[in-house]
Amino acid sequence: MKRALLLVVAGCTAGYQSGSLPGWVSDTGSYTPRTSGKSSFIDAYRESAGRIITAARADRGAYQKLAHLTDRIGHRLSGSPELERAIAWAAQAMKDDGHDVRTEPVMVPHWVRGAEDASVTAPVQRPLHIIGLGGTVPTKGTLTAPVVVARSWEQLDQQAERVRGAIVLYDVAMPAWTEENGSGYGDVVQFRTRGPSRAAKLGAAAVLMRSVTARSLRTPHTGALTYEPALPKIPAAAVTVEDSQLIARLAEKGPVTVRLRLESQNLPDAKSANVIGELRGRELPDEIVVIGGHIDSWDVGQGAHDDGAGVVTMMQALTTLRKLGLVPRRTVRVVLFTNEENGTRGAKAYAETHAGELAKTVLAVESDSGGFSPRGFSVESKQERAVARIADIASLLAPIGATRVRAGHSGADVGPMEPGGVPLVGLEVDNRAYFDYHHSAADTLDKVDPQQLADDVAAVAVLAYVVADLPGRIDAP
Amino acid sequence: MKRALLLVVAGCTAGYQSGSLPGWVSDTGSYTPRTSGKSSFIDAYRESAGRIITAARADRGAYQKLAHLTDRIGHRLSGSPELERAIAWAAQAMKDDGHDVRTEPVMVPHWVRGAEDASVTAPVQRPLHIIGLGGTVPTKGTLTAPVVVARSWEQLDQQAERVRGAIVLYDVAMPAWTEENGSGYGDVVQFRTRGPSRAAKLGAAAVLMRSVTARSLRTPHTGALTYEPALPKIPAAAVTVEDSQLIARLAEKGPVTVRLRLESQNLPDAKSANVIGELRGRELPDEIVVIGGHIDSWDVGQGAHDDGAGVVTMMQALTTLRKLGLVPRRTVRVVLFTNEENGTRGAKAYAETHAGELAKTVLAVESDSGGFSPRGFSVESKQERAVARIADIASLLAPIGATRVRAGHSGADVGPMEPGGVPLVGLEVDNRAYFDYHHSAADTLDKVDPQQLADDVAAVAVLAYVVADLPGRIDAP
Repeated sequence: MKRALLLVVAGCTAGYQSGSLPGWVSDTGSYTPRTSGKSSFIDAYRESAGRIITAARADRGAYQKLAHLTDRIGHRLSGSPELERAIAWAAQAMKDDGHDVRTEPVMVPHWVRGAEDASVTAPVQRPLHIIGLGGTVPTKGTLTAPVVVARSWEQLDQQAERVRGAIVLYDVAMPAWTEENGSGYGDVVQFRTRGPSRAAKLGAAAVLMRSVTARSLRTPHTGALTYEPALPKIPAAAVTVEDSQLIARLAEKGPVTVRLRLESQNLPDAKSANVIGELRGRELPDEIVVIGGHIDSWDVGQGAHDDGAGVVTMMQALTTLRKLGLVPRRTVRVVLFTNEENGTRGAKAYAETHAGELAKTVLAVESDSGGFSPRGFSVESKQERAVARIADIASLLAPIGATRVRAGHSGADVGPMEPGGVPLVGLEVDNRAYFDYHHSAADTLDKVDPQQLADDVAAVAVLAYVVADLPGRIDAP
Repeated sequence: MKRALLLVVAGCTAGYQSGSLPGWVSDTGSYTPRTSGKSSFIDAYRESAGRIITAARADRGAYQKLAHLTDRIGHRLSGSPELERAIAWAAQAMKDDGHDVRTEPVMVPHWVRGAEDASVTAPVQRPLHIIGLGGTVPTKGTLTAPVVVARSWEQLDQQAERVRGAIVLYDVAMPAWTEENGSGYGDVVQFRTRGPSRAAKLGAAAVLMRSVTARSLRTPHTGALTYEPALPKIPAAAVTVEDSQLIARLAEKGPVTVRLRLESQNLPDAKSANVIGELRGRELPDEIVVIGGHIDSWDVGQGAHDDGAGVVTMMQALTTLRKLGLVPRRTVRVVLFTNEENGTRGAKAYAETHAGELAKTVLAVESDSGGFSPRGFSVESKQERAVARIADIASLLAPIGATRVRAGHSGADVGPMEPGGVPLVGLEVDNRAYFDYHHSAADTLDKVDPQQLADDVAAVAVLAYVVADLPGRIDAP
């Protein structure tokens, strides 16, 4: 089918300098500078976008899938039987929805948490609420050592002579969420990932860290650490915000001693898989829009927001298009990545396995910030052209308030496609509460609002459909 | 000292019909109807109230005391060595501040929590985050039984035939805090106190209940239950909001089985004490203003808001008056009640021991709603006259926003003085977050703001001083 529709990038959204961007003429693949006219390539999609939004918002399929994933299967760390059950379930659920489904094997790390126990033993006796960081080595039996408190790398280095043989506590507060700056996670998570090896370099016996959250009700938050290969691997655990502050207060007045026991194990790599479900494109089936989330989770809570919500959003976005009979020019492919949390092996395997397809992958969208109300999209900053066009597409999402598009981070699972030149997008949501739950026992289904989740489905389905159906590629010059 | 000051109740505050209330003439004890003039008995106290507020707000003594009580002593359930350490510390701290101090022995219940463990065993396997209710009997070994979910007494009764031998789960959601209605605690706590015996009456084997909080990060909340003497005592524990909802969701789709183990013990009553510290009145030392909080806490967290904050507020209010040299006509007496949480034995013992003094106890003020910003006072509703005059006194607290006075509940520890005719007042605070922490591991010092706590000291010190110094009694006709 040929159409001679003049498409012009609409200057309707924030986040880019619209005057500097070209529009395009459909079908021919040749692009012309934008005009000041009111017509836009977007106009051709107003009706279908409206249909998608109406259908997605009225549908509870994503929430029903999430309820199964969380309540019936549960949390699902790499190597666990629950992860493999989740993968089998997701594949079957996508088949049941009529998609073309396959799984692609991936070997994943198999770290297993064991008994964990810690307490302050001097100057007072206090049990600590802890959770081992993902990948931590165990303690050798029970470790008891004085604590050195640091609130920055500088403070750690200043106390270098006291660190040898000690337990370093990184008592670094995560800044509260603000509308302007979002969450403070990015500022603080470095102490979790790099803190153990930084302390090991100075001879520390173990590391404790304040859980990476701005709000706490005595709930510890885990997450991955990264050992530097050349340095000794030392045990590392997160304590609650409350416990971290307690130790820090005690340490201001005198020596503090902590007893720590972690019984984790590193087992041989385990079999896992990425799950792929497709709606094959009607004209350019080899060109692909990837929409993905990660099927694994940490081994506490239910992995409801992280990233059950992303998984079911993508599954249901595809189902929404199929149910509406909206088959775009290009293929829309759901990828449920395995092992995002402690290895991103699924993401790396996908990028490798599909290296030959990356040139024809016109967009990869990830949702991994929770199933809250959609706000818009974050586009990897090198993709200036994509930012502008996605902003225009996002203008179709005004009914659900998801029109904000800006250059920024996309996601860990689509990241490995970047060297292949794939435009990368992250679904942005109102994540003010996300890190309250993130990587903790509190990440449970009750925290997910069914309507907000349905709105996420609408946002992704519209973006995926329009990008997959546009006459030209989203990143074309 | 005689003064011939005309004092008139000022119509300056909300919560009562000022026109219906008498004013009074000082010193003589005879009262005249209020006039429409601008002078007020309050005017005589503007300067001293200003001095108290300024001094209290600049002082961090209450917070320093709270830090000792929480970080150095810790939680302090009746019967625990920590409670007796707290009592000894509080007595010494009040002596150090120059007050007249004594302790009054009270025998208290000695219930001790043991190992606690629960999980869903069918249709899925899930560990539950639980905490035994205070006073629960233990399970006989491990109890495994089907669950009956009830969201009301009616729902319980409707399922009566299924309850025998089952575990009843009260999945009753606590309404969120609103400015208009305050917390929803009062609506829901009945399921904790009366729920075990109501279920036992129907033959239940045990009770679980949704923790009484409107916000949760997978933290269980304990609190006392009340067994009806004529009914079998069955084990009872709180589960987290998340776990309660999980069980309820599973139960909507089919049978759910839970395994429960509680190893609590009831030991013989233990020795404890109320702590009393006084600033003796300069003219009418036998007339008394009581200001109190409870020194015991539950056996989790630090009992920082509940009721460490109340304890140190009262201690520091007395110290503030003494430091300023403000010795009122009547005696101001701090009473730190023991065993509020699981017996109110301290409160009962105080009312009994001091029965002969109650006629001369002109006011009893309690703080047991957390150390948040003061908002005003709640006055037991029968005390209409006291409501009006306290509202006038509270007008002096405009600089700290604590002017709201209304008829309502005072507190569990001053309650037993009501039959003695003592006007009873509760310090009201901005308690929107109180029940997030209440009776849980999250009730810790970091949740208390030093300035808000100092404002509480100011509010109580002004109220206590003015009531203790007024020419006539606050409740005089």
